[in-house]
Amino acid sequence: MRKIAVLTSGGDAPGMNAAVWAIIKLAAARDISVVGAEAGYDGLIDGNFQELTRELDEGGLAPVSGLDWLAGTGGTFLGSSRCPRFMEPEGRAEAAQRMSHAGVDGLIVIGGNGSLTGAHLLANECDVPVVGIPASIDNDVGGSTDAIGVDTALNTIIEACDRISDTARSHQRAFILEVMGRRSGYLAMAAAVAATADAVLLPEQPLDTDEILDQLESLLRRSFATDRSKRRVLIIKAEGVPTPTLLLADQLKERVADLDNVSVRTIVLGHLVRGGHPTFHDRLIAGRLALGALDALEARTTDVMVGWQSNIGTKTQDPQVSTVPLADMLVETEKLLDGTSDVTAMRMHLIREVQGVLAL
Amino acid sequence: MRKIAVLTSGGDAPGMNAAVWAIIKLAAARDISVVGAEAGYDGLIDGNFQELTRELDEGGLAPVSGLDWLAGTGGTFLGSSRCPRFMEPEGRAEAAQRMSHAGVDGLIVIGGNGSLTGAHLLANECDVPVVGIPASIDNDVGGSTDAIGVDTALNTIIEACDRISDTARSHQRAFILEVMGRRSGYLAMAAAVAATADAVLLPEQPLDTDEILDQLESLLRRSFATDRSKRRVLIIKAEGVPTPTLLLADQLKERVADLDNVSVRTIVLGHLVRGGHPTFHDRLIAGRLALGALDALEARTTDVMVGWQSNIGTKTQDPQVSTVPLADMLVETEKLLDGTSDVTAMRMHLIREVQGVLAL
Amino acid sequence: MRKIAVLTSGGDAPGMNAAVWAIIKLAAARDISVVGAEAGYDGLIDGNFQELTRELDEGGLAPVSGLDWLAGTGGTFLGSSRCPRFMEPEGRAEAAQRMSHAGVDGLIVIGGNGSLTGAHLLANECDVPVVGIPASIDNDVGGSTDAIGVDTALNTIIEACDRISDTARSHQRAFILEVMGRRSGYLAMAAAVAATADAVLLPEQPLDTDEILDQLESLLRRSFATDRSKRRVLIIKAEGVPTPTLLLADQLKERVADLDNVSVRTIVLGHLVRGGHPTFHDRLIAGRLALGALDALEARTTDVMVGWQSNIGTKTQDPQVSTVPLADMLVETEKLLDGTSDVTAMRMHLIREVQGVLAL
Amino acid sequence: MRKIAVLTSGGDAPGMNAAVWAIIKLAAARDISVVGAEAGYDGLIDGNFQELTRELDEGGLAPVSGLDWLAGTGGTFLGSSRCPRFMEPEGRAEAAQRMSHAGVDGLIVIGGNGSLTGAHLLANECDVPVVGIPASIDNDVGGSTDAIGVDTALNTIIEACDRISDTARSHQRAFILEVMGRRSGYLAMAAAVAATADAVLLPEQPLDTDEILDQLESLLRRSFATDRSKRRVLIIKAEGVPTPTLLLADQLKERVADLDNVSVRTIVLGHLVRGGHPTFHDRLIAGRLALGALDALEARTTDVMVGWQSNIGTKTQDPQVSTVPLADMLVETEKLLDGTSDVTAMRMHLIREVQGVLAL
Repeated sequence: MRKIAVLTSGGDAPGMNAAVWAIIKLAAARDISVVGAEAGYDGLIDGNFQELTRELDEGGLAPVSGLDWLAGTGGTFLGSSRCPRFMEPEGRAEAAQRMSHAGVDGLIVIGGNGSLTGAHLLANECDVPVVGIPASIDNDVGGSTDAIGVDTALNTIIEACDRISDTARSHQRAFILEVMGRRSGYLAMAAAVAATADAVLLPEQPLDTDEILDQLESLLRRSFATDRSKRRVLIIKAEGVPTPTLLLADQLKERVADLDNVSVRTIVLGHLVRGGHPTFHDRLIAGRLALGALDALEARTTDVMVGWQSNIGTKTQDPQVSTVPLADMLVETEKLLDGTSDVTAMRMHLIREVQGVLAL
Repeated sequence: MRKIAVLTSGGDAPGMNAAVWAIIKLAAARDISVVGAEAGYDGLIDGNFQELTRELDEGGLAPVSGLDWLAGTGGTFLGSSRCPRFMEPEGRAEAAQRMSHAGVDGLIVIGGNGSLTGAHLLANECDVPVVGIPASIDNDVGGSTDAIGVDTALNTIIEACDRISDTARSHQRAFILEVMGRRSGYLAMAAAVAATADAVLLPEQPLDTDEILDQLESLLRRSFATDRSKRRVLIIKAEGVPTPTLLLADQLKERVADLDNVSVRTIVLGHLVRGGHPTFHDRLIAGRLALGALDALEARTTDVMVGWQSNIGTKTQDPQVSTVPLADMLVETEKLLDGTSDVTAMRMHLIREVQGVLAL
Repeated sequence: MRKIAVLTSGGDAPGMNAAVWAIIKLAAARDISVVGAEAGYDGLIDGNFQELTRELDEGGLAPVSGLDWLAGTGGTFLGSSRCPRFMEPEGRAEAAQRMSHAGVDGLIVIGGNGSLTGAHLLANECDVPVVGIPASIDNDVGGSTDAIGVDTALNTIIEACDRISDTARSHQRAFILEVMGRRSGYLAMAAAVAATADAVLLPEQPLDTDEILDQLESLLRRSFATDRSKRRVLIIKAEGVPTPTLLLADQLKERVADLDNVSVRTIVLGHLVRGGHPTFHDRLIAGRLALGALDALEARTTDVMVGWQSNIGTKTQDPQVSTVPLADMLVETEKLLDGTSDVTAMRMHLIREVQGVLAL
Repeated sequence: MRKIAVLTSGGDAPGMNAAVWAIIKLAAARDISVVGAEAGYDGLIDGNFQELTRELDEGGLAPVSGLDWLAGTGGTFLGSSRCPRFMEPEGRAEAAQRMSHAGVDGLIVIGGNGSLTGAHLLANECDVPVVGIPASIDNDVGGSTDAIGVDTALNTIIEACDRISDTARSHQRAFILEVMGRRSGYLAMAAAVAATADAVLLPEQPLDTDEILDQLESLLRRSFATDRSKRRVLIIKAEGVPTPTLLLADQLKERVADLDNVSVRTIVLGHLVRGGHPTFHDRLIAGRLALGALDALEARTTDVMVGWQSNIGTKTQDPQVSTVPLADMLVETEKLLDGTSDVTAMRMHLIREVQGVLAL
């Protein structure tokens, strides 16, 4: 293998830069050259390639010409996009031709399950081996216990919960804090445990608005209407729960209007959770998965994803990188989002048990 | 002076705990005992007083019984509230009587201009000297260049801008980021300079929705529709600008619908900006203003605020604490919010000049 | 089971408070009361027990009387110590008697391998079931892929590396950064990968001072003495490497004295890495391991540790909590520190491969 | 004015990049081109100039080609150095000639008092106007209440104090924490107030080792040897205090050897305090001082520094930028470091009063 291309696609995730940087460094050590496609599959289709050499790490003004600092930055310096053209066979054919012209004999795609679906299609339509690396703050990629970006996103959420708790405790307030997650409640659930939230609302829960309100009202009465009441109530809600956050807060306020001094506020974290410097864990798995992807390409494996995998076989081994066919990954992803996956069931079970006293 | 009371009132601000802690410590060194009124003026009216002694710093389980860590925490451990009863003479009379029964011969009120208005009224109706300390993340208290909490709030906003910029640059996006500030655009303006924002929208600007949209559209066309376009456009908007943030974004999107790949997103920081550990500056001025307040009480001064004051007289002096009659402070506050104050004019002038290339 | 005791022992680790808090909350939901022994085994021997009730979460001044914020704080509010008396049979007998008098019928010990050795001895000498939870920033506890505190420590180190890199790049400097780890190089190695360090020095490497200097000299010449040189060289060294950090820097400076403008600086992070708010991951596993420990006690299991375990059997499961006899854990720990454990070998192998271009 | 040069010199300070960025942006708006001299005065002498255009903000891969993120980064991307050649008239003559050849008709020097001494000499020996901007984490530049970098450094120190306090409280320990400051104790003193330290050791204090030990011993006995003792003792020491930190700790340990369980640890923050993203305040004053410097150059003023100045004349004005002759600034700096300046005296007086109960 002489030359590989790398791209980042879909929603950006902290740690994407660390993965690209590790690919550049590891490839240089093996005398493989690397080009980056700009702005995801768009760059692949349009042939917008940038040479990414280890020499970028050396000389000139710092930090612009020295790229080692890139590994510690948020976002993706290659740019990203959602690319409808790539969903069409013509777009993918154009991309394959561009790679061929540029002498690219291997492609690494870093992104979430949508982007990896594209990678799967391309892998079956072109001669160049294609390997995926899961990166998505929602942790909604099957076949990998962690996607790049999840740990950073959760730390950002936890820190936001700490801040909100500061002001909530000062005024003895309830807050509904909404986090990303259209189909997966993972971020909400995991954050609720770590932030000692009082309740969590997930898309996977089959509750209608009235049922939710019943339970939240009960929580607020229990928490605030007693002699020795709590100082703050924190309710974490996933974006994918159908009832809008503001509506929920308004109706909840009406229901507890008889309680003196109880107020309900909302905060939507939104895109705030995408940014920020990647944590240790995201930088580490970025490096490890980059190595796995390069190894897979050198073995001329294609149509696979390298996943961060919990151990198989013995309990004395570390978590490690494994290779999963992209097709299997996509099946697993669907189950994850349906709630029919063992992982989802186990996550829900264990986490709910830890919470113990959670209302919902 | 034998015994003083302290309370925190209105919206909480990071650094309130540092001020209370400094009062406890400094009073102990002067053999003055301190009680805290719980939840602002409510605690004063209801006689909910807690003894706050330096011994809280010693013994028992850490950190619960050792309070020196308090100075570094967000929110207010005394609790806060907005207290309609205190707006009535009867409420204030009740508070005065409670203080008298408790042997309190001095009161320190830590809060924003609403809370200090209450302090001013009380000072004129009771025998106990009353001194105010400005604490409000909005920096909307006249007579003090900095209120406690402003520096922390601005650092929180800057960090949020950095995060949002990470994801904006990845997708070449425009973001409208809304910060607190109903009548004062200070947070928005100061943050815009420090975060190298591309535009800022303030309540002090007499622009209607169409004028704002004209200018933002022009900004987006200039930024994104050229050969070598910008990676992110950041627009900071103060809460007090009448046009709702979501509406602005929707109409802006329509106006630039002809531009490929340009998307406009929003984020409302809201209460996130209230919390968090106070910065160095807020901890420092909290300590310095606490000292000033104690000195003022010991001199039996009343109806004043101690302000963080830029220097008067010579350029070789440090910023320092000064004493301002509360009535003067309230007049100055009104001017500040009207935009007729010299400070507002100067802030606007200087900041706008620095921005230089700002569209709005 | 009616009443359990909990203690934290040995070096403090961020997340210990989250574990204690989860134990209080989960025990309350099962009507089990909890006492905390102050300052580790010392409190057990002296019968210094504090009742820890969920009511601590409610009422009174915030945050002092509401303990849910505790889960997000560093250190251990129960206090910790190294306790020589507990190494003697008399000390342990006294502790057993104190527990019996206090009606304690279960003990949870949160600490590193030294503290868990004590737990193992006690478990075999008394009637009360004893369960351990691994907490140690060094990640040197066998039988658990992660100890509580490791993730926070690594994030603190990474952030320090980012700061040091800022100043190093400004002056084109080499820095030797020392991190904790007397017998285990895990922190150094993992941090080196995530921080894109240029070299790492571990106690597990059989290199003498001259060999280390040869390799570091070569690294500096390669990095700085070429036309397009690097901006910073970052060398991470574990505390356990016998050559003192300052000596290494001094001798290295002498060796490259012929190179213009090359300077070598040192920084010892030391105890800085122990403190700080626990990360998401440490708060999460603290909660999960607390649940595991409580379950183990309720099943009247004794002389075990609950470990954070990578998956066994299938790749569709999440990492999960498992139960390991303390004796097995201690054997595994020795291997870990000897470098004869499979885990050590695998860690070294994988991490070194990722680094790829690392000099050492 | 058509073209100006900018350089950063001496120890790097967070906010230098924000100042350079503001100069680029503001100059572009006035059609002035900007070149950066690499690595301080070395770049000036050797004619290593880089064009710095606002177009750097546009196009290409993000963030490499878009420089607006630069304002939020630590260190200095222009590089810095201490330059002995510039202390000689020949070096300065060479620099003047290089500027002349490059068509540079204005120079902005960003640095501490050493670098500004160089600027003063150059200003008097060449035709090009020279303006200085104070940047130094030590806050040891006369004529400016704040130098760029001081606020960030203090926030880094405060955060380190919080971390150290976490672990100190867990074990009931005393820590001596050393911060930068060879001749100025400002960082130590200001940090001590904000971090609620128990003692502070400054180079300005005329105490010998025995006197220091007497007072620290007394502090430890008072703090730890009573029935209800403190959880942590924090002693902040400036680098410039002659007694080495380790020696102090060792001798202190000996003196309190009779106290059970009292341990004394040390931590030297060193270069850690130089790095990190600049705070709001440092980004703000960087922008404001950049504007002041550009205005001064356009007015063809030379041999001056623009300082962040507390207000003169009225208390209704904001802090603002003023222009100080470099010669006056240097006189003021000497007084600052001698301790004969009014500012030093006032700082010491006020801060000591706030501390109140400080032992030293």
